[in-house]
Amino acid sequence: MPLPTPLSGVVPPLCTPLTAAGDVDTRALASLVDHLLTAGAHAVFALGTSGEAAFLSDDQRRTAVRATVDAVAGRVPVLAGVIDMTTARVLDHARAARSLGVDGLVATAPFYTRPRPAETAAHFRRLRDDAGLPLIAYDIPSAVHSKLDAATLLALAADGTLAGLKDSSGDGGALRRLLVALRARGLGDTFSVLTGSELTVDAALLAGAHGVVPGLGNVDPAGYVRLYEHARAGRWPEAAAEQDRLAALFALTEAGGGASPVGCFKAALRLLGVIDCPATAPPQVPLPDEAVASVRGLLAEGGLLR
Amino acid sequence: MPLPTPLSGVVPPLCTPLTAAGDVDTRALASLVDHLLTAGAHAVFALGTSGEAAFLSDDQRRTAVRATVDAVAGRVPVLAGVIDMTTARVLDHARAARSLGVDGLVATAPFYTRPRPAETAAHFRRLRDDAGLPLIAYDIPSAVHSKLDAATLLALAADGTLAGLKDSSGDGGALRRLLVALRARGLGDTFSVLTGSELTVDAALLAGAHGVVPGLGNVDPAGYVRLYEHARAGRWPEAAAEQDRLAALFALTEAGGGASPVGCFKAALRLLGVIDCPATAPPQVPLPDEAVASVRGLLAEGGLLR
Amino acid sequence: MPLPTPLSGVVPPLCTPLTAAGDVDTRALASLVDHLLTAGAHAVFALGTSGEAAFLSDDQRRTAVRATVDAVAGRVPVLAGVIDMTTARVLDHARAARSLGVDGLVATAPFYTRPRPAETAAHFRRLRDDAGLPLIAYDIPSAVHSKLDAATLLALAADGTLAGLKDSSGDGGALRRLLVALRARGLGDTFSVLTGSELTVDAALLAGAHGVVPGLGNVDPAGYVRLYEHARAGRWPEAAAEQDRLAALFALTEAGGGASPVGCFKAALRLLGVIDCPATAPPQVPLPDEAVASVRGLLAEGGLLR
Amino acid sequence: MPLPTPLSGVVPPLCTPLTAAGDVDTRALASLVDHLLTAGAHAVFALGTSGEAAFLSDDQRRTAVRATVDAVAGRVPVLAGVIDMTTARVLDHARAARSLGVDGLVATAPFYTRPRPAETAAHFRRLRDDAGLPLIAYDIPSAVHSKLDAATLLALAADGTLAGLKDSSGDGGALRRLLVALRARGLGDTFSVLTGSELTVDAALLAGAHGVVPGLGNVDPAGYVRLYEHARAGRWPEAAAEQDRLAALFALTEAGGGASPVGCFKAALRLLGVIDCPATAPPQVPLPDEAVASVRGLLAEGGLLR
Repeated sequence: MPLPTPLSGVVPPLCTPLTAAGDVDTRALASLVDHLLTAGAHAVFALGTSGEAAFLSDDQRRTAVRATVDAVAGRVPVLAGVIDMTTARVLDHARAARSLGVDGLVATAPFYTRPRPAETAAHFRRLRDDAGLPLIAYDIPSAVHSKLDAATLLALAADGTLAGLKDSSGDGGALRRLLVALRARGLGDTFSVLTGSELTVDAALLAGAHGVVPGLGNVDPAGYVRLYEHARAGRWPEAAAEQDRLAALFALTEAGGGASPVGCFKAALRLLGVIDCPATAPPQVPLPDEAVASVRGLLAEGGLLR
Repeated sequence: MPLPTPLSGVVPPLCTPLTAAGDVDTRALASLVDHLLTAGAHAVFALGTSGEAAFLSDDQRRTAVRATVDAVAGRVPVLAGVIDMTTARVLDHARAARSLGVDGLVATAPFYTRPRPAETAAHFRRLRDDAGLPLIAYDIPSAVHSKLDAATLLALAADGTLAGLKDSSGDGGALRRLLVALRARGLGDTFSVLTGSELTVDAALLAGAHGVVPGLGNVDPAGYVRLYEHARAGRWPEAAAEQDRLAALFALTEAGGGASPVGCFKAALRLLGVIDCPATAPPQVPLPDEAVASVRGLLAEGGLLR
Repeated sequence: MPLPTPLSGVVPPLCTPLTAAGDVDTRALASLVDHLLTAGAHAVFALGTSGEAAFLSDDQRRTAVRATVDAVAGRVPVLAGVIDMTTARVLDHARAARSLGVDGLVATAPFYTRPRPAETAAHFRRLRDDAGLPLIAYDIPSAVHSKLDAATLLALAADGTLAGLKDSSGDGGALRRLLVALRARGLGDTFSVLTGSELTVDAALLAGAHGVVPGLGNVDPAGYVRLYEHARAGRWPEAAAEQDRLAALFALTEAGGGASPVGCFKAALRLLGVIDCPATAPPQVPLPDEAVASVRGLLAEGGLLR
Repeated sequence: MPLPTPLSGVVPPLCTPLTAAGDVDTRALASLVDHLLTAGAHAVFALGTSGEAAFLSDDQRRTAVRATVDAVAGRVPVLAGVIDMTTARVLDHARAARSLGVDGLVATAPFYTRPRPAETAAHFRRLRDDAGLPLIAYDIPSAVHSKLDAATLLALAADGTLAGLKDSSGDGGALRRLLVALRARGLGDTFSVLTGSELTVDAALLAGAHGVVPGLGNVDPAGYVRLYEHARAGRWPEAAAEQDRLAALFALTEAGGGASPVGCFKAALRLLGVIDCPATAPPQVPLPDEAVASVRGLLAEGGLLR
């Protein structure tokens, strides 16, 4: 299905369930998709950071996208991440994803080397031209080590290269200024701004963002949908209260003691009965038992588990 | 006057006007105080980063505090910054400020060396014990190069060492989690949380912060007061619209082309007729003429100048 | 040919010449290999950062490795970089490189996500077990955004996982402590330490490093070979004088005005008649004409061009 | 005594011994000075980072400088640090130090705010004009959070503002390029370059640096003097061997488990019988007993204690 203009709402970045043997668990992925869509998610985003895209082989990436498209079955749009260090490789991922029927792509700036803005712009333009699908820029300096600057984003929004932005920079001031600048250029209703900062979603929506891509939304999609619906209806205190509850629940990302949040999300999803196996891709080490106990406690406090 | 519990509202960090000869211009400082209080500021904060505390001699600091206390004349509470690299020096500044009649102190963690959390806590405790005034911690990693961690803040809030926090970290997620944790400990109505991020004030207030310390509030205090009043009354769309206008005005901080925002604030204050001389303390270089022209243009766009 | 124990000497990280159409120029690559081996290089390293590994497709990587192995024709050992964000992908590159006949592999820690030391160690162990070739760890925090810590390196050296280290961290103090610790464990003559800091090669060799992987060695391999031979013979003032000359020549990496050094190296190689076309892989932008003129001037000053 | 041109040799940054009550222990300071001068130190530097300048009151600073000048009694030149966040305050420290008879000053760029190069240059020029003493720039980005750039340093060297540089940046490549550039401008024999990187002193001297300011030189001044004399005589392998021994000894800076190295230096000095009391200035926390035991073990391993 075509991506709405602008893409709005709750767009969880799907975890990629794995079997104990390390294969993509397509059955569990379907279960996760149902968990999210039943809760009201407005789209799904496969192969983001929460999807362990950084750890999967090309085959595993393709399997995950195919299984997502199959499980979603046209109910909502499907975005696919095409995260890689090389423009050439990003193009490969994009072609694969398009052939599997996704509705839009999500790409970062090149990384490993530090691109200049002109190189980043060329990267996105090349990708848009080649792939022929709506393209969302993914600003995640914690992984990519450069920030997409406002001037580049505004130019790529104005010329139609980009359909939107997933902002995981954590820089709320820059996000605010970008939103104001987009509206001043008449792009406020066409260029989709999605926050990846799951702790300040009410703030981003109040500032005019169109939606959220919350890693924690794998675990509690209904919470984020409620938050979004409150905001859309102008019930800001209720949105803030929901965000407060989710901010407390977010402590589960630290249960692993320095481990990546993804292992904690997967432990939570198993405790909730959504997936069978909490394995993460190598070389990530498994969550220790006491971490799983902490996750269980936080799910109970957050009202998700009795 | 005693600091309210919790300190709330708009608390501009006063610029310190200087004469062309480099002395603190007490007459202009009084004019600036009137500019802020007429607009409805709820307190003032002398000798913050916007007050060029980092550039003033001890004598100049004392002159600025005395002139601020005199000009305020009990109309609102007066906070004084006691920013220095050394606990011993911070104690000196604190004693001077107390003897000049301020109502509360604002202090950073030690800097130059990188303190451990236990050392930062000892620093604040020593300062609170010695100075006998309400103490607000100033979290500004861009200047101090360490972030106040939540555990330390919660401990110092719980034992009464700190009366509040001025958060200039720009980390909205951490701020949200701190606010949630303070309320969970019953400290939500006594420990004052003030944001220093002038571009996301609506967000901070929606999250439960009590007020804002906006450098840009030197230039447009009425805008921040309107924003605060809208938020307090639950008029969130109006608060967001006011924030949007201020976000556009914030571009004036970049008019100097890499120079510190303070020179731009002072240029604006002269254009508005509040102060006579836009000089900043050495070794800062003056704003070039074209930068002043840009500031003028932005004031006009923001509706502050015809 | 088997890798010497320890690998020593000058090991240039080969540029990957491209045609104007963007293909790997195998003829120019052979010319570059001859340029380096004629100058006395002790081994070559394909697909490092200077080899634009971050910009090449899998096919291009394979073509570059095959052409390097063919051009070297057993005269010196060939190392191949297997730089990728994913352990799974690194394994793919390693298998391809092994089947093409390389003598050793060079791998970074995983990147994009921030690995913990245990994960990095697991990554290298898995790679060593699977590939069955000598493995050199590549410490390049500017690209990978984590530093290989001494404890992990010492453990992986002691158990035979790693045959050596290419240190591009720029941290001379840490390198010194590592060298001292390796010798204290009896690993000083078996574990190869190669510096990637082309401005302090005399220092690294004096400290006990075994060799150097100098990007600038593409342009002036004879200079680095002289430096190395001086050092090996204990002619330290002559080594330092050669390093000084190379340090002045290094200014050509900045000729591009913020562009990556690789474009400058390629411009120099064309001016020297080693390659035909200075193209770099997209999305990198070409060197402007005035930058090429600067490169020419620096080559002349350095005595490489009349 | 006038500062030699260029200042050369081993210039330990004096620890500032304190009594248990927290006062500057002038008797212990005299003992430390004797410990250093007996070992052959070529000058001393009071109130550097190792001297806890960041923690001392103005009175304590003055006491420390006076006691140092008295203890040295003209045997070697005395440098005094004038480290502060404010140009105005640095000027105050400089006047005090001059009146106490020091032979040269050591100053950082302004900090807390981030100065632009033109502001840093103005800062040093103002200081040189006002103080009338030879001025050494202190490049320590870990504390000051900006790096002195080569262009600024070369300009200030050429116009006589600066007599030298203490480089604690850890950037050996930049240091090499600066040394080459100074010599190219005919400043190699007049502008003093001292490294503060105590683990790579042999390298810095081989590259043409004139001396070293080693914190660890408080503990083992004779080692650094031997290293320097070996280097001056061209005995590079012997210099490297001495550096290796000192690199192993440097582990004592980590004995405190994250604490600042100064506490470890002071513990070592007490174990060596040079000072009576290892107290550091508040809010630093004391070294735990097990850390002192580690320091003792490392002193024994390094041959300084039986």
